[in-house]
Amino acid sequence: MKASPHVLEFASARARFSAGKDNPRDYLERCIEAIGKRNGEVHAFVTLGLENARRAADASAQRYRDGKPLSAVDGMPVGVKDIMDTADLPTQMGSPVYKGWQPRWDAACVHALRSGGAIVVGKTTTTAFAGGATNAARNPLDLRRTPGGSSSGSGAAVSAGMVPVGLGTQTQGSTLRPAAYCGVVGVKPTHGALTTQGVHPISLTYDHLGVIGGTLEDTWCVASRISSAAGSPGGPGLNGASDTLPPARKPQKLIVQYTPAWQSEVEASSRAAFEGLLGGLREAGVTLVAAGEVSAFAALEESFFGNYMKRHGDISAFEMKWPYSQYMERHAGELEQRVHDRLARAAEMTSADYAAILGERARLQAQARDAMGGIDGIVTLTAAAPAPIATAHTGNRSYQAFATLLGLPAFTLPLMEADGMPLGAQLIGHAGRDGELCALARWAVETL
Amino acid sequence: MKASPHVLEFASARARFSAGKDNPRDYLERCIEAIGKRNGEVHAFVTLGLENARRAADASAQRYRDGKPLSAVDGMPVGVKDIMDTADLPTQMGSPVYKGWQPRWDAACVHALRSGGAIVVGKTTTTAFAGGATNAARNPLDLRRTPGGSSSGSGAAVSAGMVPVGLGTQTQGSTLRPAAYCGVVGVKPTHGALTTQGVHPISLTYDHLGVIGGTLEDTWCVASRISSAAGSPGGPGLNGASDTLPPARKPQKLIVQYTPAWQSEVEASSRAAFEGLLGGLREAGVTLVAAGEVSAFAALEESFFGNYMKRHGDISAFEMKWPYSQYMERHAGELEQRVHDRLARAAEMTSADYAAILGERARLQAQARDAMGGIDGIVTLTAAAPAPIATAHTGNRSYQAFATLLGLPAFTLPLMEADGMPLGAQLIGHAGRDGELCALARWAVETL
Repeated sequence: MKASPHVLEFASARARFSAGKDNPRDYLERCIEAIGKRNGEVHAFVTLGLENARRAADASAQRYRDGKPLSAVDGMPVGVKDIMDTADLPTQMGSPVYKGWQPRWDAACVHALRSGGAIVVGKTTTTAFAGGATNAARNPLDLRRTPGGSSSGSGAAVSAGMVPVGLGTQTQGSTLRPAAYCGVVGVKPTHGALTTQGVHPISLTYDHLGVIGGTLEDTWCVASRISSAAGSPGGPGLNGASDTLPPARKPQKLIVQYTPAWQSEVEASSRAAFEGLLGGLREAGVTLVAAGEVSAFAALEESFFGNYMKRHGDISAFEMKWPYSQYMERHAGELEQRVHDRLARAAEMTSADYAAILGERARLQAQARDAMGGIDGIVTLTAAAPAPIATAHTGNRSYQAFATLLGLPAFTLPLMEADGMPLGAQLIGHAGRDGELCALARWAVETL
Repeated sequence: MKASPHVLEFASARARFSAGKDNPRDYLERCIEAIGKRNGEVHAFVTLGLENARRAADASAQRYRDGKPLSAVDGMPVGVKDIMDTADLPTQMGSPVYKGWQPRWDAACVHALRSGGAIVVGKTTTTAFAGGATNAARNPLDLRRTPGGSSSGSGAAVSAGMVPVGLGTQTQGSTLRPAAYCGVVGVKPTHGALTTQGVHPISLTYDHLGVIGGTLEDTWCVASRISSAAGSPGGPGLNGASDTLPPARKPQKLIVQYTPAWQSEVEASSRAAFEGLLGGLREAGVTLVAAGEVSAFAALEESFFGNYMKRHGDISAFEMKWPYSQYMERHAGELEQRVHDRLARAAEMTSADYAAILGERARLQAQARDAMGGIDGIVTLTAAAPAPIATAHTGNRSYQAFATLLGLPAFTLPLMEADGMPLGAQLIGHAGRDGELCALARWAVETL
């Protein structure tokens, strides 16, 4: 199975709403039905807000009847990761620390969608504070497996056809990995392109907002709406933001990134799937170059995987001092070992240490800009393997680190399978050129 | 009156605590006594947390007895502006929208102080969402007058000797103006030097954290503690952060900034006071140059006051979309006209408009770097006049805009008087060189 067979799509529903052949309330009721059928085993939603959702759907239906939808997301049911504040639903961060807590505002991403008429169905399951340990959510394609994390519930909800789109975040792999494990589409735009205001932080300069959807078009449309309605303080927002997909564009040249994990962590079935994908790209006329063939890129990979990956945690350690050190004082026993470890490391660091590692990242980012000149993007796995059997953690992060820690835009597309489960193909682009990457992703989805 | 005669100082108390001649609980009780005497008329505090404060003071006293204070702020009572989240006290933003609201975390600045042993006495009065309208707070030096805003309560509390230090924020003039009106010291470091995480935003790329204190040393020490304990995501933090003041340094050359408000808004008494200050600087051997004598600086002022000041509001308008547009939907009648106006302007703006004005600011910032080469800093008024009689607003902002909107560090020092009230002297420095500016401020305080 490459893609989840259950996914919904929304873009075409708008035309049916306008033509009176369907309406947002009925669309929502079908979502609620899917939730009713599967949430008991999938645990995609931790909190539902059906009364407000139905009221919002009725209002949306009226707007379509009046010929005045508010935006391209009017009437779209969405799942909201439970580290994003919602003014009408508790926001519990997947942690007992926030049990029953009620914010007074909607996070910027949530309000951007609601103000365009989108419907918040409920809050989706997150690992505690978007960390690495597992939670109750299960992969709807195989209940023994994790849907990935930390945006576990959003991945599962989209994969199970409960909502067409769910919101996620990614500090290392938390959007792309669950999207890949669940056989759906995910995007993590350039760092800062979508604001994280009102979202509980892990590490501000690594945290990205992400979107998980059943189709590329719905995924892009939601990311675009967030950018155009909420803006992104201090930056230009999402490059190429649009209600519709950009025209498909065939990449001329892609770098193939294997990463050191290829040797140590990728099984034969996943290797074969990826080589099959590369074969398809070559057949379509795309020039593929190994990272080693582009000396500047090889040098970047060497710096990144050989050195930076050993030290990148210092940035999150330092940035996690707030607010995690206060949770540690009051709730140490309820926090993951990772949090303990990072705060212990942070306690050893000075502001100068932090500035030094920030500087190192900035140099790598500059190196990436140079090394990627003349190429359209990077193709790689989204994760080293299909969704693992859920035990203690939500899966391997080796393949998500490069794009995330450098802040480059990345899509995962459900184009491969291994062991009967979906395996995501990841496309990584140039910083600040998200729209161009989306055009390549569209080509890939339509061609491969 | 130049400085408030009531202010407390803390730096010397530490030695007395260590020597057993005073202790943090007694220090706190004296603060509580001052609050009891004057808060009924000054309205500096909206919420008091005396039980927790006394417990924290006792713990601090024990640490001093054990010879193990946590930091230079251990035992220091502080007032916290009520737009800063506190986990043990309601955070009400000066607005009915947040009546009774209780966060689960301390803002980064608050936790940085508490983790060093500082004692949160209570939440200080703010104008609604740190906006421009008046509130209940009154100037302790003359109850007919405003203490300024939006950090009204922190300015008043320090001026009345209720606490040695109060926290503020500044988006245009909200820290320096109340400090000046109340005859105390204020600092607004370089934009981004102190993190605003956990503080309700107005406009993220204009919002600064600020500190108001009775002495320069306590003010600097608190700013430094916030920087060293909380860090500043994505940046180096406060330049020159230290428990103690840097050695005093006499400026060689200062630019005198009059601004267009000098002609239109500054009365004769304030003009005379400022000219007196300049005389003192000259007498001490400082070379003063008029802005017009440095052609690059004259060009910068022309661009800033002639053009940018007409458009700077577009940045805050766009950034206020979140979270203010959702408050507008639910609480329109409870929001200032300014908020209505800004959101109306934001609705007309595109992301490209926003990016354009951000670009304009970036050019001015680069121009400031160049134009300030070879000079130590800028001397100007902190506000056009002493604290006005409190009517509808919290005073004039003409003199705070330059440093704030360009993100330059600025101190206000209680070095002048007019009409029997304090008049602040403002020193503005180079971006990212806060410690150097503090050294000049120390010289000014010790010399003038």
